[in-house]
Amino acid sequence: MSVTAAQGFRAAGIAAGIKKSGKADLALVVNDGPRAEAAGVFTRNKVKAAPVLWSQQVLTTGSLRAVVLNSGGANACTGAEGFQVAHATAEQVAEVVGCGAIDVAVCSTGLIGEQLPRETVLAGVRSAAAELASGPEAGSAVAAAIMTTDTVPKESAVTDPAGWTVGGTTKGAGMIAPSMATMLSVVTTDAVLDRATLDAALREAVRYSFDRLDVDGSMSTNDTVLVLASGASGVEADPAVFTAALTRVCRDLAEQMQADAEGVTKRITVRVTGAASEDDAVTVARTIARDSLVKTAMFGSDPNWGRVAASAGYADAEIDPERLDVTINGVLLCKGAVVAGDRADCDLSGKDVLIEVELGLSGGADGHTAEIRTTDLSHAYVEENSAYSS
Amino acid sequence: MSVTAAQGFRAAGIAAGIKKSGKADLALVVNDGPRAEAAGVFTRNKVKAAPVLWSQQVLTTGSLRAVVLNSGGANACTGAEGFQVAHATAEQVAEVVGCGAIDVAVCSTGLIGEQLPRETVLAGVRSAAAELASGPEAGSAVAAAIMTTDTVPKESAVTDPAGWTVGGTTKGAGMIAPSMATMLSVVTTDAVLDRATLDAALREAVRYSFDRLDVDGSMSTNDTVLVLASGASGVEADPAVFTAALTRVCRDLAEQMQADAEGVTKRITVRVTGAASEDDAVTVARTIARDSLVKTAMFGSDPNWGRVAASAGYADAEIDPERLDVTINGVLLCKGAVVAGDRADCDLSGKDVLIEVELGLSGGADGHTAEIRTTDLSHAYVEENSAYSS
Repeated sequence: MSVTAAQGFRAAGIAAGIKKSGKADLALVVNDGPRAEAAGVFTRNKVKAAPVLWSQQVLTTGSLRAVVLNSGGANACTGAEGFQVAHATAEQVAEVVGCGAIDVAVCSTGLIGEQLPRETVLAGVRSAAAELASGPEAGSAVAAAIMTTDTVPKESAVTDPAGWTVGGTTKGAGMIAPSMATMLSVVTTDAVLDRATLDAALREAVRYSFDRLDVDGSMSTNDTVLVLASGASGVEADPAVFTAALTRVCRDLAEQMQADAEGVTKRITVRVTGAASEDDAVTVARTIARDSLVKTAMFGSDPNWGRVAASAGYADAEIDPERLDVTINGVLLCKGAVVAGDRADCDLSGKDVLIEVELGLSGGADGHTAEIRTTDLSHAYVEENSAYSS
Repeated sequence: MSVTAAQGFRAAGIAAGIKKSGKADLALVVNDGPRAEAAGVFTRNKVKAAPVLWSQQVLTTGSLRAVVLNSGGANACTGAEGFQVAHATAEQVAEVVGCGAIDVAVCSTGLIGEQLPRETVLAGVRSAAAELASGPEAGSAVAAAIMTTDTVPKESAVTDPAGWTVGGTTKGAGMIAPSMATMLSVVTTDAVLDRATLDAALREAVRYSFDRLDVDGSMSTNDTVLVLASGASGVEADPAVFTAALTRVCRDLAEQMQADAEGVTKRITVRVTGAASEDDAVTVARTIARDSLVKTAMFGSDPNWGRVAASAGYADAEIDPERLDVTINGVLLCKGAVVAGDRADCDLSGKDVLIEVELGLSGGADGHTAEIRTTDLSHAYVEENSAYSS
């Protein structure tokens, strides 16, 4: 149910010895074709990890035969030496798979600012190549090998009645933020698609999935989402149907990341409606989703709508306080920025919280809405991130 | 050493019964003249509390005779009824002081979304008027009456050799954010100044004091800084000297707020140098100061410079990774976005942390720099804000 769900892919996930814990830390995904279209979306952080710089470069061809991923080190802020390690890793994959280094994307995740152990990584690539297999276990081994502070592996797949499949995996638990909420995600498909369609479909899917998850507002140096198409089903996919399926897989993976985010005790959805534009809806939802006072209130199961209203009020978007309504878990608490309901009626004892903010500036068929998913700010988040060093 | 340090002012702080705890919750500051210039800076939140709307309106005259402040309720998101309470409070002050309501500013702080008890507030104004006095105790009573989650009152004063004084008080511990970090602050002076000079001096002072404090990125609905000038010293102040003195008082008050911020265990200064512009320097410093992963690392005394570099990298400012240096508590850890020093050499066991980020895009006399003060993200912050209801 992951990167090997689609036909034409083999994968492996192993413990190469990069992590001191001895846990799985290196994964390889190989596209056996017959086709090799690929697309990627990368972090917009100006400080980019070496593997991001490498992968952006090779993806200008719109084609990939393999992806190698490691946890246990981000290979970020590692300078020329770090770039050489990423390059050497791609060369090693090219040798064992039988393609050019230009056909190999590299992804890394872990602590920023430490060099990866070059020989350990290269030996790991050779070991992983020996274990390449199709079938669900191989896909699950990839999902396991890319975990850092994740507590569960994350996989998703959708099969279209027309005969093609999209499946993928992701990792990510902290440093999850605006535009590109994931740290690393690889999705594969056996549908027959041209490069432009694949690229457009990925951008659309990311926009409504990973980009709408914001755990802590911190944008990583390593964020990467890749999609590889083997064409092995022999079935040409309708672009719109394929985009919908890819979006579904990406949303499913993003929701799994939200549920497993660092220190999460509440899964919060902020839904903004009636905005002056879709951008405004996203901005207001993201501002609320990032507000430490909103997030701590939710941790305390406190329906503190005043903090939600205040947060909407400082969002860089068009707001008319007299039209601002706040509803939490179905209870209208604030109408026109004035107290409306009784906090006591609002039950936040469960794990899921829905914060609805109606801006009253658009509606009906012309209404602009957006949803951002986030988590609460808990003691466990503070604990995990004050001691993080994996 | 506070609002009564300057000549021409009387003040009182009392327990009016707004707070259920019975603690002091209402303060009155009266300018006995001979002059009555005043200036104010208010929150830029689009959701403004009733007292902010009232005070902005009366300040268009550039003159104030009195300020009434209450804790125990923000009078925000309270609609027409809330505005009527603010208006009635000003009318009551006008009556007891002997001026017009248009000469009275109103400030409130506390929970958003609850009506203030009107008769309790009005009776409190009458009681406070009976206790108006000059002298340091009266100023300290004001500082005490405006506290919410503050643990200590905050006061500051500077006397110029020319013969005039500036003194003030502030409150603020949470919801401290961009542009206007304070919740409420009143500063008085007996210098002789015209309105335009006073207004310009306040904007300059706030820009380099309260605006450079960012505890949690949340902008309040009630933020207000007021300065009142009595002219009672009879000494005309040089505008530049006065601006410097006012800035010193405001910076001192802002530093007291930082030290007393909710759940603080570290006082963090983020200093950005070599930026392409001063705005860029502020943006980068603020982005780092707000980053939850930087703040939790500091709480854990972990010199995690990778998070600082990543945070600079997603700031909306000009950044060249190859010129990005990070120094923490004097130890250069990252040069050109590449690991440079040993984390082990960096001692974060103390309470003060200095994060220096050199962007390498300007220098010397043309260098653009900025400092933002913030705090760590601790268990106590989460605890206090998940249970806040004062």
